[in-house]
Amino acid sequence: MVIIGEKINATIPSVRSIMQERDREKLSALAESQSKAGADFIDVNVGTGSGSGKDEIAAMQWAVETIQQQLDIPLCIDSADTAVLEAGLEIKKGAKCMINSTKGEQKSMEKLIPLAVKHRAQLVALPMDEKGIPRTVEDRLKVCEKIAMACEQHGFSSSNLLFDPLVLPIATDNKQGRITLDTLAGIKKYFPKAKTILGLSNISYGLPQRKRLNATFLSMAIYAGLDAIVANPQDKELMNTLRAALALVGKDRHCRRYIRSFRVKK
Amino acid sequence: MVIIGEKINATIPSVRSIMQERDREKLSALAESQSKAGADFIDVNVGTGSGSGKDEIAAMQWAVETIQQQLDIPLCIDSADTAVLEAGLEIKKGAKCMINSTKGEQKSMEKLIPLAVKHRAQLVALPMDEKGIPRTVEDRLKVCEKIAMACEQHGFSSSNLLFDPLVLPIATDNKQGRITLDTLAGIKKYFPKAKTILGLSNISYGLPQRKRLNATFLSMAIYAGLDAIVANPQDKELMNTLRAALALVGKDRHCRRYIRSFRVKK
Repeated sequence: MVIIGEKINATIPSVRSIMQERDREKLSALAESQSKAGADFIDVNVGTGSGSGKDEIAAMQWAVETIQQQLDIPLCIDSADTAVLEAGLEIKKGAKCMINSTKGEQKSMEKLIPLAVKHRAQLVALPMDEKGIPRTVEDRLKVCEKIAMACEQHGFSSSNLLFDPLVLPIATDNKQGRITLDTLAGIKKYFPKAKTILGLSNISYGLPQRKRLNATFLSMAIYAGLDAIVANPQDKELMNTLRAALALVGKDRHCRRYIRSFRVKK
Repeated sequence: MVIIGEKINATIPSVRSIMQERDREKLSALAESQSKAGADFIDVNVGTGSGSGKDEIAAMQWAVETIQQQLDIPLCIDSADTAVLEAGLEIKKGAKCMINSTKGEQKSMEKLIPLAVKHRAQLVALPMDEKGIPRTVEDRLKVCEKIAMACEQHGFSSSNLLFDPLVLPIATDNKQGRITLDTLAGIKKYFPKAKTILGLSNISYGLPQRKRLNATFLSMAIYAGLDAIVANPQDKELMNTLRAALALVGKDRHCRRYIRSFRVKK
């Protein structure tokens, strides 16, 4: 299971302040604590939804440089703006990195897939297109098919593709949990070389005890074939459930990681 | 989700004492507390593994009578001995009841299926036969097929059949979790009228934090299509996970039961 630490996200007010004040120490601490807790990638999202593209380019450059001065860890460059993604990718060090994300829209794929090819990055892909998020499993898988074909045309191996089956709140539509999970299982079936990735927290939006819902959903997703997760690796409850789930589906030889995680605690 | 309260089981030393001392008050309390906590059935297992068949018949009769004097709740008559099952079934009141369990052995099915027909009982069926517990999903499903065919021959509707895909500890073989879950999913696919049932606790045998493993496994099983569970309904953690899981797979309209369960607590 690949864990992408989600905490460096400028839509969170405290992180926005860190960005605005260019607080190197606090940014480094955010990256380091996630790395220590077991993150394999650090997601870097400097978008606030209000600043200009120019501001975000500068913020991305600063963030990537700052983290890499301190830490040797792959980054997941996360932006809705291709120029911001490029700015981050141009200066990232090391071979391994991830781009978050392309949609199934022609416009989006034409920019993002060549960018991933150029930087040899893994690419997160969302099965939504010009018409929005498809309502059925079949239609989401059709968009995945479109994305997989576009990748093939650009010579981008689907083994570097991470499909996110998309998560919508069950509070507004209680079929959404199953749609996400069945899409995930369908991706594993029809695109066996591609990986799957999920951000959990949307699922529980508007409901009590969100951590319980998120952890329960994670367990189900791991049975459905989840390969990577965008999450807070310092959320111990979630990480313990993750280790239990991996042991239960046979992805933890002799349950060693599971057992070790509780031994260390004592 | 049908919940079968598991606490009246004479292999538990305190329950064995209740049986030996014919302690009406304590036995009634065990049944009542499970009923209050949300059990739909009360499992009654008087087998100690040491007493004679005669002793067990008398104990079963006493237990069924005692519970039913106090409580109007369906029972799950649970024994490896057909005579003990019959003793319980003969005196149980009410239309609804369950027999736990038949195996796929000819000998077992020939006794148990007619018994279920006679008492209009639901029947738990284990996909194991003369050769033991099959090691693969395919072989377990073959035994299910054999059981389903025997039920048809006896005019026993498979809608009254509950298949238990069997749970073995992952501590000794880490493929066992997936084998159980894939068998469960296979049963839902190939025998759509039949129900599925599970006892959880075996899965975590020999590992730390067993409750966490059991709850995580339950989440996965609910996504795989679980219909009924043999469990302790007073285990709040497990029941909260169960409610979260049902909400996540769309089996809780508007997430009402999930929301209500946390509202009551405050």
